[in-house]
Amino acid sequence: MSKQNIPRTELSELGEFGLIDQLTKNIKLKNKSTIKGVGDDTAVIEKNRNKYTLVTTDLLIEGVHFDLTYYPLKHLGYKAAIVNFSDIIAMNGKPEQIIIGISVSNRFSVEAIEEIYSGIYLACEKYNVDVVGGDTTSSVSGLFIAITVIGEVDKKDIIFRSTAKKGDLLCVTGDLGAAYMGLLLLEREKQVFKVDPKMQPDLTGNDYILEQQLKPEIRIDIIEKLKEHNIKPTSMIDISDGLASEIKHLCKDSNLGCNLYEDKIPIDITTASVAEEFKIDPTTAALNGGEDYELLFTINQNDYEKIKDMEGISIIGHMTDKSEGENLITRSGTSVQLKAQGWEAFKK
Amino acid sequence: MSKQNIPRTELSELGEFGLIDQLTKNIKLKNKSTIKGVGDDTAVIEKNRNKYTLVTTDLLIEGVHFDLTYYPLKHLGYKAAIVNFSDIIAMNGKPEQIIIGISVSNRFSVEAIEEIYSGIYLACEKYNVDVVGGDTTSSVSGLFIAITVIGEVDKKDIIFRSTAKKGDLLCVTGDLGAAYMGLLLLEREKQVFKVDPKMQPDLTGNDYILEQQLKPEIRIDIIEKLKEHNIKPTSMIDISDGLASEIKHLCKDSNLGCNLYEDKIPIDITTASVAEEFKIDPTTAALNGGEDYELLFTINQNDYEKIKDMEGISIIGHMTDKSEGENLITRSGTSVQLKAQGWEAFKK
Repeated sequence: MSKQNIPRTELSELGEFGLIDQLTKNIKLKNKSTIKGVGDDTAVIEKNRNKYTLVTTDLLIEGVHFDLTYYPLKHLGYKAAIVNFSDIIAMNGKPEQIIIGISVSNRFSVEAIEEIYSGIYLACEKYNVDVVGGDTTSSVSGLFIAITVIGEVDKKDIIFRSTAKKGDLLCVTGDLGAAYMGLLLLEREKQVFKVDPKMQPDLTGNDYILEQQLKPEIRIDIIEKLKEHNIKPTSMIDISDGLASEIKHLCKDSNLGCNLYEDKIPIDITTASVAEEFKIDPTTAALNGGEDYELLFTINQNDYEKIKDMEGISIIGHMTDKSEGENLITRSGTSVQLKAQGWEAFKK
Repeated sequence: MSKQNIPRTELSELGEFGLIDQLTKNIKLKNKSTIKGVGDDTAVIEKNRNKYTLVTTDLLIEGVHFDLTYYPLKHLGYKAAIVNFSDIIAMNGKPEQIIIGISVSNRFSVEAIEEIYSGIYLACEKYNVDVVGGDTTSSVSGLFIAITVIGEVDKKDIIFRSTAKKGDLLCVTGDLGAAYMGLLLLEREKQVFKVDPKMQPDLTGNDYILEQQLKPEIRIDIIEKLKEHNIKPTSMIDISDGLASEIKHLCKDSNLGCNLYEDKIPIDITTASVAEEFKIDPTTAALNGGEDYELLFTINQNDYEKIKDMEGISIIGHMTDKSEGENLITRSGTSVQLKAQGWEAFKK
């Protein structure tokens, strides 16, 4: 919540081409599939004939997806990349190229934009992704980030949302609801700060949920572990809009129903305790919080023995016939219809 | 400049998923390379091993790239697609898939967004491009469009900016400066309309330049004609920022200089006459106006005979040694240094 003491170069001093040069001068391409990066009309990519190309775009809009009073620009850049990598991972693929579209008002300095880029570059460095293009332009007000990520997957390895089978086990990675609790915490401290700017934010002990909100990671570790153990999920999706919403996607696209067990939903102790502070049911946070960027997938029951003790994976239910509906089996054993109040942009 | 009388459905009535369903329900995939379109974590594309994949993104920002007082939403959608197709064409490729990112405030109705989409779909229909994904979200204010287009090109056919040779002839398609004059005309009528809303806009006789601004096309016809005549340009770029700026890109990337002849620059008679009305030198409009979406390319001198009478192509100069610099030879025969005052987002 403090302003960093960095020099300020106006965007008008550099101009569009100057800015692009400045932002892209240190790019080193790493992937064999990247033939040509920044500097021509398009990026040029080459795919082996055994591969599918995966492409995804996500928009991050100031005032809707992030609030710069508590969102450090570098983290924002990092997250903007990660949320797209997560979509590639959810197809069982590997992100390889990124195209960065940024629109900013002159409220932002060159240094501020460099901060955003440094976050994107950090994520690319970590996950071995090449920056191959972009568009940088001014806006009348606000910051808009449009990221496109291109990935690849061996044809035999691709996993869709629509291929779960009746009887399959429903699994989730990590724990859920943390990013949402992190957001509520930051929002609360923002309000406190508004009333008394001298007040220092009280975020002690909540590193985990703050990190889940501000610097999420993708579960490429789980993808690798599943491959090592020769387990291919029968369907997969990433959890960006909340567990309930994503389970409903899997059910709808696979034409199935499901039973989800409340007591099996993985929730971190910090998430649970902050939820209690906010008088929110932790299950609700896990079901509808969103922004977890964990993986939701189904496996054949024959893989149960292989997966049951695997760290970082929880079995939370199973797929049923469509006629049985989508059900949440509560801690008390009651079956209730699963409802998604997931993050829906226009209903906020 | 008139409001269309269409019904108004609020975005909040549909929600994000409802809106996406509504916008994508009629999509029919046409390209063999499209394996999976809308409806999973990413689009899935398959490329033949003799092809390169081309990817490009462009942002269109309200108040910066367009003004909705005179820009019909359907035309806006059409143009948003076209400007990206043009980048693919400039690599000698063929656009095949499109991903549509749109961020709107609740000032816009569902019908307004459908109008934008109908323009995008029209362009896709015309150029045989599949809509394979997107992201639709709210904004605090304004309309932001981020379009990503994926194309392909036979490896042997790809044309970069950086491969022009000394002595090559510099060629351009169509005529230049028209889109810029169209813009000035629309801006003028907007001012008139502001002063007296009952005043009808006076746009008679200027259809051509208005169309170049509001509904530009791509020069796929020229690409095909060159192939028919067995001419492969030695370098190519599309003219989005104005002729001067793009020539300088070609020179810089190919490590060459050039002589550009003012009297050879193709300018339509409407462009010239409107330029005169605005007291603008037509050459300046052609050099720096931008948004022409024509192709600038170089060919080997041996292809001169084949190209010299080809309709829609003008030979405007030739490439020289880098040491000779980038020169404009004026009508009076004077050589002056070529300067780009092209559209630079942050200097506007």
